Amino acid sequence: MDGIFETQEEVPEIRERLRRVGITNLRTVAKINWKGRLYTFIPTFEITIDVPEEKKGIHMSRLVESITETMSEAIEEEVSKVHSSLEELELAIIKRLEEKHPHQRAEIWIKTHLILERETPVSRRKSLETYDVEVGLIKEKGKLEKVLRVRVVGNTACPHAMVNNRGKTHIQRAIATLEIKTSFNEEIALEDMIEVVESSFSSPTYTLLKTVDENAVVQRMYQNPRFVEDVAREIIFKAKQRFKGRIHVRVISLESIHKHDVIAETWYPF
Amino acid sequence: MDGIFETQEEVPEIRERLRRVGITNLRTVAKINWKGRLYTFIPTFEITIDVPEEKKGIHMSRLVESITETMSEAIEEEVSKVHSSLEELELAIIKRLEEKHPHQRAEIWIKTHLILERETPVSRRKSLETYDVEVGLIKEKGKLEKVLRVRVVGNTACPHAMVNNRGKTHIQRAIATLEIKTSFNEEIALEDMIEVVESSFSSPTYTLLKTVDENAVVQRMYQNPRFVEDVAREIIFKAKQRFKGRIHVRVISLESIHKHDVIAETWYPF
Amino acid sequence: MDGIFETQEEVPEIRERLRRVGITNLRTVAKINWKGRLYTFIPTFEITIDVPEEKKGIHMSRLVESITETMSEAIEEEVSKVHSSLEELELAIIKRLEEKHPHQRAEIWIKTHLILERETPVSRRKSLETYDVEVGLIKEKGKLEKVLRVRVVGNTACPHAMVNNRGKTHIQRAIATLEIKTSFNEEIALEDMIEVVESSFSSPTYTLLKTVDENAVVQRMYQNPRFVEDVAREIIFKAKQRFKGRIHVRVISLESIHKHDVIAETWYPF
Amino acid sequence: MDGIFETQEEVPEIRERLRRVGITNLRTVAKINWKGRLYTFIPTFEITIDVPEEKKGIHMSRLVESITETMSEAIEEEVSKVHSSLEELELAIIKRLEEKHPHQRAEIWIKTHLILERETPVSRRKSLETYDVEVGLIKEKGKLEKVLRVRVVGNTACPHAMVNNRGKTHIQRAIATLEIKTSFNEEIALEDMIEVVESSFSSPTYTLLKTVDENAVVQRMYQNPRFVEDVAREIIFKAKQRFKGRIHVRVISLESIHKHDVIAETWYPF
Repeated sequence: MDGIFETQEEVPEIRERLRRVGITNLRTVAKINWKGRLYTFIPTFEITIDVPEEKKGIHMSRLVESITETMSEAIEEEVSKVHSSLEELELAIIKRLEEKHPHQRAEIWIKTHLILERETPVSRRKSLETYDVEVGLIKEKGKLEKVLRVRVVGNTACPHAMVNNRGKTHIQRAIATLEIKTSFNEEIALEDMIEVVESSFSSPTYTLLKTVDENAVVQRMYQNPRFVEDVAREIIFKAKQRFKGRIHVRVISLESIHKHDVIAETWYPF
Repeated sequence: MDGIFETQEEVPEIRERLRRVGITNLRTVAKINWKGRLYTFIPTFEITIDVPEEKKGIHMSRLVESITETMSEAIEEEVSKVHSSLEELELAIIKRLEEKHPHQRAEIWIKTHLILERETPVSRRKSLETYDVEVGLIKEKGKLEKVLRVRVVGNTACPHAMVNNRGKTHIQRAIATLEIKTSFNEEIALEDMIEVVESSFSSPTYTLLKTVDENAVVQRMYQNPRFVEDVAREIIFKAKQRFKGRIHVRVISLESIHKHDVIAETWYPF
Repeated sequence: MDGIFETQEEVPEIRERLRRVGITNLRTVAKINWKGRLYTFIPTFEITIDVPEEKKGIHMSRLVESITETMSEAIEEEVSKVHSSLEELELAIIKRLEEKHPHQRAEIWIKTHLILERETPVSRRKSLETYDVEVGLIKEKGKLEKVLRVRVVGNTACPHAMVNNRGKTHIQRAIATLEIKTSFNEEIALEDMIEVVESSFSSPTYTLLKTVDENAVVQRMYQNPRFVEDVAREIIFKAKQRFKGRIHVRVISLESIHKHDVIAETWYPF
Repeated sequence: MDGIFETQEEVPEIRERLRRVGITNLRTVAKINWKGRLYTFIPTFEITIDVPEEKKGIHMSRLVESITETMSEAIEEEVSKVHSSLEELELAIIKRLEEKHPHQRAEIWIKTHLILERETPVSRRKSLETYDVEVGLIKEKGKLEKVLRVRVVGNTACPHAMVNNRGKTHIQRAIATLEIKTSFNEEIALEDMIEVVESSFSSPTYTLLKTVDENAVVQRMYQNPRFVEDVAREIIFKAKQRFKGRIHVRVISLESIHKHDVIAETWYPF
């Protein structure tokens, strides 16, 4: 480092602590051993640490290195053993960061997609479904907390229009997000969160639907009319029973009769 | 300009003509006299000119000035007389640009929203509806052409599911874009284009719907089941009859039973 | 209302209170009397209320009516007197909503753009600058709070690269957001918030820059090298002194030497 | 199919041919054998066919099946042999579609990311870089054409400001897109297209940069000042020499001194 000035280590003119300083929108390769199988994907990363009031800045490249070294230096065997979930991968990155850059607080986020295999309702064909997921890990005052988020596409069939139109109603795509903030050691599978959300719509959606399957989905939507409020209530009700932590639910319905959307959002504890 | 180097006027190392060089994503105030009423809005502008192979670059600030001077120097009275449509405002900007910067070809785009007053189907209340519109003006080889685009939100009720489920079907929000490329002097109102598109869905959508109106919209959707293909066909069919020019139609349906969208797109002449 | 079923008033199967239920992404016309001048614009609205555990849903159309009636029934004279800021317009909408729909908690958001007139540094030309602004009003337990947000585009010139490259450095566009949550009666002008943010970058940005102005901006960037951390610190430092409330600052720098962005974020109280 | 109505096969009321009808924004798993290594990824698909004027619609599920069967039924061994590029994967999907659904014209698009390994300029560390790529395959009148697109993030250092400020200048992130439309059998590697674009900026960008590398990138930007016009010219010049086909180049520079962007775009043949 001979001859290089480390401006980051200087005392800044204005003394203010900063809680989150780092890298965002970084896309790179990651690997985890998900359910016994090596899984390679290209997520988006965000990684931040705090800055004390007597330091001008952080060494950004050390954050990048913590990510890339964790992935590239790991031999596949090691990945298979160690990183069996997104949050364990994040923990490995934060541990590496601890050796590289002093900090009190660290936070790391991975945004990616999950693919789950579903069976269509009647023809029993395999349909691969994709879900947006986000996992955050926050290390603060020696405590490790994680935030798990899933985003699921479903639909709503309006119960109010149905009762006022003798069984006819407006139907539309709806999107629900379930977030749980809990301690690192709490075991919560993203697949279970997705199941809670997906089963709370008027019907789940499928990538592949033959006519017999499409008919079953249509029938199901009419048998389960739901306001956006109903979807939110069912998700929070099920989530409280199955998962331990702070819960946030947000449902948006892309109304087919309006240009705008309707929304229902709630928290637990309220 | 004493002491200022005009790098743009130099001969570049690599000689290649460039067709479109300029400013994009510029948001500023604009005014037009739309149907006899002064209308102020904040559109997004794009303005480009060509660069001959012996010039290194263009003077970007002159493009900005052509826009801002056209708006700010115009006294309101002048606006009232001159700019009675988006394309006439664009022509005024290009005329100003001709005095500022030599070029063979110029192209200018305005993206904004149009607000139209609608009446709800039963309660006859006023409902203000917004539409994305884009107007482009292209001056090339002494010829002036314009491109008009409207984007309208409606819905589709699937006729295939309806016939296979005794009148029940899946319904969803759909979005259609109609584009017409024609000569500058061809008089085509964006409102007429919007009407062509909006009347081609299973039903139009409304910002405000009381229960009696909502019922009417629901009934209408079931009486007019449409594939995304039907919507596209009806738009192109009507547009060909009403408007002179090259036509492009694109309809996207946000399927309520799938996570993906379906699309129908066509052109005239085919 | 004879013969219409009000499904919303039923008791839902699952009893869960919902905090935020309503309309989002609704675009319509609004008018305020800003600094003595009538100003018409097309913002995006979100409006939500809470739902008690014994009600199945809310009457969405009453939320829409609260917005549209506030705007359309108001004669221009009334607007001139009453709505002199976005939050006062929001209060008028909530007051109208109180007569239409029972609730304990209401929240309304307006997202729009603000145009401010600036003078270029040397040629002293007028340059119109646009800023994204958001204003939220939250009525809860008889208390009125507001949230004000501004988003400003500036730049950062890296001080670390500068000292290691004898005055040369990497420069890039940066975007900062300042948010203040405070009581409704606290008078804070969005323009003042914008000024605080805009003066904290290496330099402000301008829509129009003649060469002499561009030179001044370039010189200014090199005289004010800033980490994204420096920008965040300066904004929070100034904001604490000028504005009363909870403050959040977020700065993102679109690094010219990386594909990813860097971020600095902090809160007051910390 | 007993008892199922095939509405799609009916003759529509309005007879209009449609050129592109199908599925868009479909995200699913895909596999190719890229350079001898099996590569699994989650791209976004669009697949469309034409509709003759005597048919009401297409059987959308057959398009989905053509994609999913091509992937899921293929044993890994087969993938290794057959799909050695995105366009060959697309060809396999179209061939499967030919057996499932009659059509005259078919078009399929895959959007995904490519990861390339780079070496940092001085410390010679490995830096993984990501690029957006799109590959389209169009089958029309018995002819197969493909469209290859790459999107690369780089930077521009303004030569005009540099000469007017004694070596100081404004620098910013810039994004360039190179598209080539050519016959299916023309061998063009996306990596080669990326190289052409990446080498045409003031400097390439890197995910990881230690201080010595950052210094090298900064020095390089000042040694290679480029207008957005220069970047576009260099890309089209190189692309014409290396690749056979119709070429389109688009460069956007996220100006650090403005809120708007500047653009340069050109085509070959012009």
